[in-house]
Amino acid sequence: MVDIATRVWNHKWKIDPIVRSLIDTDFYKLLMCQTVFRRHPKTRVTFSLINRTKSVPLARLVDEGELREQLDHIRSLSLSRGESTWMRGNTFYGKRQMFTPAFMDWFENLRLPAYHLERVGDQYELTFEGSWPEVMLWEIPALAVLMELRSRAVLHDMGRFEMQVLYARAMTKLWEKVERLQKLPDLRIADFGTRRRHSFLWQDWAVQAMQEGLGRAFTGTSNCLIAKNRDLEAIGTNAHELPMVYAALADTDEALRQAPYDVLADWHDEHEGNLRMILPDTYGTGNFLKHAPDWLAGWTGIRIDSGDPVEGAETAIRWWKERGEDPRQKLVIFSDGLDVDKIEELHARYAGRVRVSFGWGTLLTNDFRGLVEGDALAPFSLVCKARSANGRPTVKLSDNPEKATGPEDEIARYRRVFDIGHQERREVFV
Amino acid sequence: MVDIATRVWNHKWKIDPIVRSLIDTDFYKLLMCQTVFRRHPKTRVTFSLINRTKSVPLARLVDEGELREQLDHIRSLSLSRGESTWMRGNTFYGKRQMFTPAFMDWFENLRLPAYHLERVGDQYELTFEGSWPEVMLWEIPALAVLMELRSRAVLHDMGRFEMQVLYARAMTKLWEKVERLQKLPDLRIADFGTRRRHSFLWQDWAVQAMQEGLGRAFTGTSNCLIAKNRDLEAIGTNAHELPMVYAALADTDEALRQAPYDVLADWHDEHEGNLRMILPDTYGTGNFLKHAPDWLAGWTGIRIDSGDPVEGAETAIRWWKERGEDPRQKLVIFSDGLDVDKIEELHARYAGRVRVSFGWGTLLTNDFRGLVEGDALAPFSLVCKARSANGRPTVKLSDNPEKATGPEDEIARYRRVFDIGHQERREVFV
Repeated sequence: MVDIATRVWNHKWKIDPIVRSLIDTDFYKLLMCQTVFRRHPKTRVTFSLINRTKSVPLARLVDEGELREQLDHIRSLSLSRGESTWMRGNTFYGKRQMFTPAFMDWFENLRLPAYHLERVGDQYELTFEGSWPEVMLWEIPALAVLMELRSRAVLHDMGRFEMQVLYARAMTKLWEKVERLQKLPDLRIADFGTRRRHSFLWQDWAVQAMQEGLGRAFTGTSNCLIAKNRDLEAIGTNAHELPMVYAALADTDEALRQAPYDVLADWHDEHEGNLRMILPDTYGTGNFLKHAPDWLAGWTGIRIDSGDPVEGAETAIRWWKERGEDPRQKLVIFSDGLDVDKIEELHARYAGRVRVSFGWGTLLTNDFRGLVEGDALAPFSLVCKARSANGRPTVKLSDNPEKATGPEDEIARYRRVFDIGHQERREVFV
Repeated sequence: MVDIATRVWNHKWKIDPIVRSLIDTDFYKLLMCQTVFRRHPKTRVTFSLINRTKSVPLARLVDEGELREQLDHIRSLSLSRGESTWMRGNTFYGKRQMFTPAFMDWFENLRLPAYHLERVGDQYELTFEGSWPEVMLWEIPALAVLMELRSRAVLHDMGRFEMQVLYARAMTKLWEKVERLQKLPDLRIADFGTRRRHSFLWQDWAVQAMQEGLGRAFTGTSNCLIAKNRDLEAIGTNAHELPMVYAALADTDEALRQAPYDVLADWHDEHEGNLRMILPDTYGTGNFLKHAPDWLAGWTGIRIDSGDPVEGAETAIRWWKERGEDPRQKLVIFSDGLDVDKIEELHARYAGRVRVSFGWGTLLTNDFRGLVEGDALAPFSLVCKARSANGRPTVKLSDNPEKATGPEDEIARYRRVFDIGHQERREVFV
């Protein structure tokens, strides 16, 4: 039976929107946004989108008009009553009312600020300027829009059954991963794949497949909209943008050296439990931990997001021991470029030594590698980062020089201030 | 948007019928039925269903009540106006009005006759008795019902995503076959997989995938309902039941020897073109051709449905040459236990030597091998055959002694009358 109303509804779409909700974003964005809204509402920032995979000619694949329509649509979004209720009423990590009434009032009235889009060769330059709490909310939807428009472009000329088989193959591929993960005792794993997902519907499918296949081992999703719709826990804490902007705003080398700890001191004031997660790699994990204040060793755990994950975890374990903490009580979240092989390896290595959790991103929500000719649906490395704060450039070093961003002279200065020695280069996959 | 009407409609189903139309059957059944209706309306026959794969305990897998509901539902079916119009008005092989008004009037008023069902150990004994034109129409729906009830039984406890992935895997498997077939120049292939399909919906999907993937190389389907719904050519000619019943009715050995030719003489009267296909193996291909009347060499082609297909085709080619026919003008249809390897091999071997076509059955519409634990969805060898006519047992020898059916003494007599020497045993897969 044809549902005529649905068919007519489909006809009248001006566009088929990719992002349909302001909470179709990572939970940590909203957490960080509240902190920024409270403490740095006037800070001016620039975010820009960069395609690190130059071999994917985004501007040739994706029509500029369609991209503008999608971005304009996002600017038309505002928080719905149900979304607001979910944010105000939900329990996150057992804590109620994580978002203050003041923040919610502001967020309910928010529209995302203007964007600047320009085609440069085969790539797009997409930048956002304005107050930090507003601009920062562009990151995830901007990435998701470009990723999905690229998927749509590749799928555009496929036959109906060819396309169904493509998704059949992708489902099979993902399910085979789930079947391998089912074998890992006491696994804890969450979806962190919003930003570089193949599409919204595919992420939603992947999350539900993980829910059915892994049961309680699947701890939730970073995507607030999907968490809300699928009755899951929203997962996340904080990201590099906080230390990057704090660092850019530092007036002296001494203040710069202190900036990453200032971030966490502010965070400490506001949060507890699972939200007290250290993200140590913005300017090198080793030095960060070495000079960290003692109260930080009391935090719940650490998230390892660049460099060799084993080296990162071992460094953290040594550090906890030095500070008199029991690593077996500590949580280590691995979240960098994971796939099942790596998850199995890290799970085996750290079982019993620390509490382990995995934040599985792109290869959960966008593993279409090898499924179409020329690998045209393989995920690629698109990022959207803070580039400046109050007119000063931002810098990220991370534990992998391939992931460093910022002007060269500033990178050099940061490397000196943070006393970074040799860093091993690792290929950035996604 | 939920389609409430569909949901409510679903709720009120007493059963979820497997066969919903009298034309959800093979086209050749209807062609043969018309011949039988004209020439042998009073002949009494018994058909019975036999599961050759004893390792599949049908009576343990399939609830008897459910089976009765499905069979009773089939008995409630009658030809719809649209189905009648399609049969009366359609062009088959370029010929209009293949079904006479008298046959259509009879068919429009037909209900299928009673069945007899008994559980014997882990198997069902399912038999049909009555007039030949009525009873013969039970064969395909009875097989389809048991095949699909078995599939449903295996699927019953699966999770929603587990099930979706199962179908994803089956789709991928089928599509990989389609991709291989795309490489064969001038391929002609049709769906012959109704009787042992995984399910109706799956056959319908397989047919559409073949349509999209192979375009004009996909010549149609034996299933009349799907042909009608999907705007395809209905494909088929005749089957072993005609010579089997004609032979059983023969009063003398001489008449028995003549029976297979009588069948084709009657057929010759009624049909031309692509419908003049010889099915020579009921009592051994070699002798059948050796003693065939000359007019049979003028027929369009031959269908090879048992034994070594290469031996069958070579025998036919030699025979045509002996009778002064050009094999390159002749059509050879391979239809026994095909899968892509065999199709590729036969296609390569006979390109340019004869016109080749493939009738692809069970491994098109039911290749779920290897997809669930214990291979519980692998196809199995279920048949429904004429067992007696006017009280006399029927016999089939075929070119493979494993496929022989009938009482042992009668098989011995037939082997003597038809002068069958040594026959190579070949495993019957499906």
